[in-house]
Amino acid sequence: MATAVLAPATDLNALFAPASIVMIGATEKSVWSNNIAGRLEEYGFDGEVYVVNRGGVDVHGFPGFTSCKAIGKPVDAAYIFVPVAAVYDALVDAADAGVRGVVILTSGFAEVDAEGAASQERIVAFARERGIALLGPNSLGYANVAESRALTVIPPRKPILLGGIGIVSQSGATASEIAKFAHQQGFGISFTVATGNEAGITTSDVVDYLVDHEPTRVIAIYSETINDPAMLRRAAIRARKARKAIVILKVGKSEITAAVAQAHTGALVGDDGIFDAACHQLGMIRVNSVEEMVMTAGLIDRVGPIERPGIAMVSMSGGTCGMFADLADEYGLPMPQFAPETVEQLKGVISEYGTTLNPFDITGAVMRDPTIWTRALPIIGADPNIGIVVINSNSPQAQHDLAGANLQASGYIPGIAAMAVPGVYITQVLQAVNETMASYLQTNDNPIMLYGLEYGARALAHLSRWSSGLDRVAQDLVEQPSRSRPQGEREVLTYLGSKGVPVIPAKLVTSAQDAAAHARLLGGKVAIKIASPDIAHKTEVGGVKLSLEGDEAVAAAFEQIMRSVAEKAPEAEIEGAIVAPMRSVGTELFVGTARDPQWGPVIAVGLGGIWVEALKDSAIRLLPVSKPDVIDMFRSLRGARLLEGFRGSAPVDLDAVADAVVNIGEAALALGPDLASLEINPLLADGSQIEAIDGLTVWSN
Amino acid sequence: MATAVLAPATDLNALFAPASIVMIGATEKSVWSNNIAGRLEEYGFDGEVYVVNRGGVDVHGFPGFTSCKAIGKPVDAAYIFVPVAAVYDALVDAADAGVRGVVILTSGFAEVDAEGAASQERIVAFARERGIALLGPNSLGYANVAESRALTVIPPRKPILLGGIGIVSQSGATASEIAKFAHQQGFGISFTVATGNEAGITTSDVVDYLVDHEPTRVIAIYSETINDPAMLRRAAIRARKARKAIVILKVGKSEITAAVAQAHTGALVGDDGIFDAACHQLGMIRVNSVEEMVMTAGLIDRVGPIERPGIAMVSMSGGTCGMFADLADEYGLPMPQFAPETVEQLKGVISEYGTTLNPFDITGAVMRDPTIWTRALPIIGADPNIGIVVINSNSPQAQHDLAGANLQASGYIPGIAAMAVPGVYITQVLQAVNETMASYLQTNDNPIMLYGLEYGARALAHLSRWSSGLDRVAQDLVEQPSRSRPQGEREVLTYLGSKGVPVIPAKLVTSAQDAAAHARLLGGKVAIKIASPDIAHKTEVGGVKLSLEGDEAVAAAFEQIMRSVAEKAPEAEIEGAIVAPMRSVGTELFVGTARDPQWGPVIAVGLGGIWVEALKDSAIRLLPVSKPDVIDMFRSLRGARLLEGFRGSAPVDLDAVADAVVNIGEAALALGPDLASLEINPLLADGSQIEAIDGLTVWSN
Repeated sequence: MATAVLAPATDLNALFAPASIVMIGATEKSVWSNNIAGRLEEYGFDGEVYVVNRGGVDVHGFPGFTSCKAIGKPVDAAYIFVPVAAVYDALVDAADAGVRGVVILTSGFAEVDAEGAASQERIVAFARERGIALLGPNSLGYANVAESRALTVIPPRKPILLGGIGIVSQSGATASEIAKFAHQQGFGISFTVATGNEAGITTSDVVDYLVDHEPTRVIAIYSETINDPAMLRRAAIRARKARKAIVILKVGKSEITAAVAQAHTGALVGDDGIFDAACHQLGMIRVNSVEEMVMTAGLIDRVGPIERPGIAMVSMSGGTCGMFADLADEYGLPMPQFAPETVEQLKGVISEYGTTLNPFDITGAVMRDPTIWTRALPIIGADPNIGIVVINSNSPQAQHDLAGANLQASGYIPGIAAMAVPGVYITQVLQAVNETMASYLQTNDNPIMLYGLEYGARALAHLSRWSSGLDRVAQDLVEQPSRSRPQGEREVLTYLGSKGVPVIPAKLVTSAQDAAAHARLLGGKVAIKIASPDIAHKTEVGGVKLSLEGDEAVAAAFEQIMRSVAEKAPEAEIEGAIVAPMRSVGTELFVGTARDPQWGPVIAVGLGGIWVEALKDSAIRLLPVSKPDVIDMFRSLRGARLLEGFRGSAPVDLDAVADAVVNIGEAALALGPDLASLEINPLLADGSQIEAIDGLTVWSN
Repeated sequence: MATAVLAPATDLNALFAPASIVMIGATEKSVWSNNIAGRLEEYGFDGEVYVVNRGGVDVHGFPGFTSCKAIGKPVDAAYIFVPVAAVYDALVDAADAGVRGVVILTSGFAEVDAEGAASQERIVAFARERGIALLGPNSLGYANVAESRALTVIPPRKPILLGGIGIVSQSGATASEIAKFAHQQGFGISFTVATGNEAGITTSDVVDYLVDHEPTRVIAIYSETINDPAMLRRAAIRARKARKAIVILKVGKSEITAAVAQAHTGALVGDDGIFDAACHQLGMIRVNSVEEMVMTAGLIDRVGPIERPGIAMVSMSGGTCGMFADLADEYGLPMPQFAPETVEQLKGVISEYGTTLNPFDITGAVMRDPTIWTRALPIIGADPNIGIVVINSNSPQAQHDLAGANLQASGYIPGIAAMAVPGVYITQVLQAVNETMASYLQTNDNPIMLYGLEYGARALAHLSRWSSGLDRVAQDLVEQPSRSRPQGEREVLTYLGSKGVPVIPAKLVTSAQDAAAHARLLGGKVAIKIASPDIAHKTEVGGVKLSLEGDEAVAAAFEQIMRSVAEKAPEAEIEGAIVAPMRSVGTELFVGTARDPQWGPVIAVGLGGIWVEALKDSAIRLLPVSKPDVIDMFRSLRGARLLEGFRGSAPVDLDAVADAVVNIGEAALALGPDLASLEINPLLADGSQIEAIDGLTVWSN
């Protein structure tokens, strides 16, 4: 649940970028202790290191004390790995000695039982009171690789590869697997942390920290539960402004995962559809696997945002072009065809090219003459629709491949260098960076690499979408209680009208004459419905009459409704009846808001009728929602094609619909946190004429 | 296009399992020549080897001759790599000397220009005439790894890993990439071939050969064009009977779409729907990438078919369980929950397990006591719904991981051995078999491995689906011309009725009295429609009247129709009118057949109305189609949920619908190859009452 556990003043710098640290519980005999000391050396920590243990003896070559206070000068951060019963006292000692950042490795807290949870709560309360940044308990620690700080037991893969990927993982084992795969593929890391129980600092807090961590350009998250969605939302908004990507692998998509996670951490996994919506809206890149995460993060780290969403692919193998085109189609990777001037110029390079499609089969001619690459690539890179060019050629895995790969590189490496946009090399299949590949990379000045067409295509699709969305604005949620509580169709529609939502010109009338008069004013056929706060199902009490025309028919219908309701719902308070024009054409849309316990108010849209009811075909976003978001939502519906007009319906003016939906969202937000739900069903779209036909509110408490 | 280029008597054994071979064009100076000779040695060919060159000199240590005939005894197979102009003569010489299998490496044929195509045609015609099995031209050759035969220039990765994967690739470069990735992941190969131009032997022919190639257990295909669909179909039917899997990566999706776009039904299908349908129906596993292909082929090679489709997953990490469950959900991997007796017994192993879900979090307790694996796994493996168990634990990549991984293996390896079903180890991320992993594999007796949760989940999903479908029967297509040519609604419905398709009890009447009499017989409301072979749009000429009841109304409607049609379509031949009961409830289905130029007659089904027309929501299969296939088709529709009954419609009896659709397919086939299309729209399903309401045929020529 969203609870702000950090005191506002808490600063994570003392924890993640300490100048001095203390190991509490250090002893030569402990595997943990040796591990932590080893990591300090491997990551090159050059600040002050102290150890605290019962005897106050020196350990691992660092000066020993019996307590933090005994050190006699302030220390920035502590790693506590004493037995569970001694953790609280150790924390108090550290706090008293001026330590401002603490990692607790010790396990046996909330992840075990209720008693453990109580101990954990006591520790957290103390840390909060004293403004200490607390990581853990049950945390394998962090490595601020870029700044040579590390309080962790996880060994680095060697040699340590420095890059711009910041890894934030709830699980220490998975943090390690992510780093392993990144290392195997040659991607460098700036920061890695295992957040453990997240009793103090959450994943969201670390993400927020990394937005300001200069060496980090991409934040890669593994999460089982988002413990502070509001903070993640703020951090994601800041990250997008800073043009840093967030790539997130979040479990809990399937129902069974939710059950497993509950069993595993006792954590609330949350509604996955809403999390997915949040990712879309906040520009966070959601992935399905560690491989996809690392390939995407590695690409974005090296390339940064691209200026145009279109991707060009060039290969000397037609089959590889075909495979890539299929994968591009599968993963929504935009591959625009080349502009006429590009085609013209390419034919100047090699006259015999029959076709110059994208993906571009540069043919085996480059085997004889690699300079074809050098001449063709700058032309492709200058195409007005292309933001990045992907190159595939011979790739080295065994020693006997290397000469051919280097020969090809002698053509495309200068070609890439001469392009106006970034160029990336892609191998056909996923291949570990072995010695031969490493030799190729070194020889060719470390080109940007993607490994395998499939994960490569996915990573490129993410890069393209993320880049395109960078200028979108997501707003943070600001809610205030409201006194206004519209209820019942009439009040709701009136309220919506006052908020700029187009509503059907309905009128409350209290007599048969007034009904007939309003019907005359409207012209055409009308509908009459009973108006009563006590009647939910109007048809069942004979409270609805449709397709009425002419004074007599309208007046008679009014009288019939009143008689029928008086008989069938004698207790109901009757305000009158609503007279509204009949609408027989148009596309029925559904718009509704709800309140998610984690993320707050959300809005859903869909096509009406079977689409929402039987097929659950809807799209959801957090509130407030922007116009481009709403257009995305409608376009993502399975039945989206029906919006283009079908069986005599005019095509729906999505722009006008989006305006209405944004206003509905604003109207819902203005009603404050007591609004459980606001539903417009249908919102009728007849071309660009948009009208809310019926509205309903539900209130909590 | 489907042309049977092999003479019936052609036997591929001389080509792919020769006892003696001749290299035509051999010289110490040629890279090709050296490559071929090197491969003979590396693959351990121990038969007779001869070389032919202009001087008749010995090369690579093999005896040299000026021609094949000069060798003086018959030779099984030849590899021809002389210049393009000399190929034909070399082929004639080889044929005259009794060579029965030929690979042509030389390029410069149909892949280049029209002149090359003509040369190729001449070569193929000669080979066909002489019953020679011809591979190529432009073929990098084959390696029959399992039987130590090789006529290829592609170098093997060393050490050569022998296994049951047979690779058939149109592209030599991709054949090499597939083998590379298989080698990196430690999967063994039985056979590999690059089919080149496929002028003689096609991919389909090789697949057919490999069905009988005993060491091959899985056939992995990379294809750009299926050159002989009929042969592939027969081979796939045989492969399924032999319980050999076919895994296929097929590119060029848009080509197929173009080919089928002419047919109305085909146009509804979208990108390469027919090939996809063929894969479903023939039990061929279609994949998107080389990685997915190799992982799937490697798994099936080691495991073979599983007895039950359900998969259990056991990990010591809850997070990994969650990730796997999400991927299982994504890729349709069935993970049934454990039976009560399984849960009971698992609690006997470790009493503190709160939950025993699948995936099963065996918890970190196995770190202290690996025998928990040994005791838990046989229980899970005995679950009545589980066909395979997947294990995840510490996996080794660096030396410091190895001890932990081996310790865990000491628990799960005997656990797997004691299971009633196969067990597979899965790593969390895709990891190359490096030295540490190799050491782990050796120590633990080479367990069956999958690398990476994502490709692992995909491979397991394929294994499960393929195993479940093994007993399905796909029939080969047998078509004969038919004299019967039903045309027009009445004839078509009558014909369908005679073939066991339930049709609406409509009757042709020629007088108002007969109309009234038949309406009375039917009871309830009726519809009357004009019956004329010349009138396609009946409503437009006033030829339709609906919802009629009572003798007078029916008779009057008949007269009105006749008058209106006589006036608006005076030239039309009038057979009378059709009287049919009104059907106001039920679910409208669409069933239509079409003719694909490659695969022949196909059948499509969908929901009626907007589903087929606007949303292109249909499923397609080859004819003849089986009942389980038809049920799959309906279940695969996006709107499938509507078949469960909605807004007063009874749930559709899929079993009854499938019977009707199978009969419609048989009825279409019985009309012979001149039938372009047979459409039933709608097929109305009201619970288990199924009725063809309208039928239409279109004929070619």
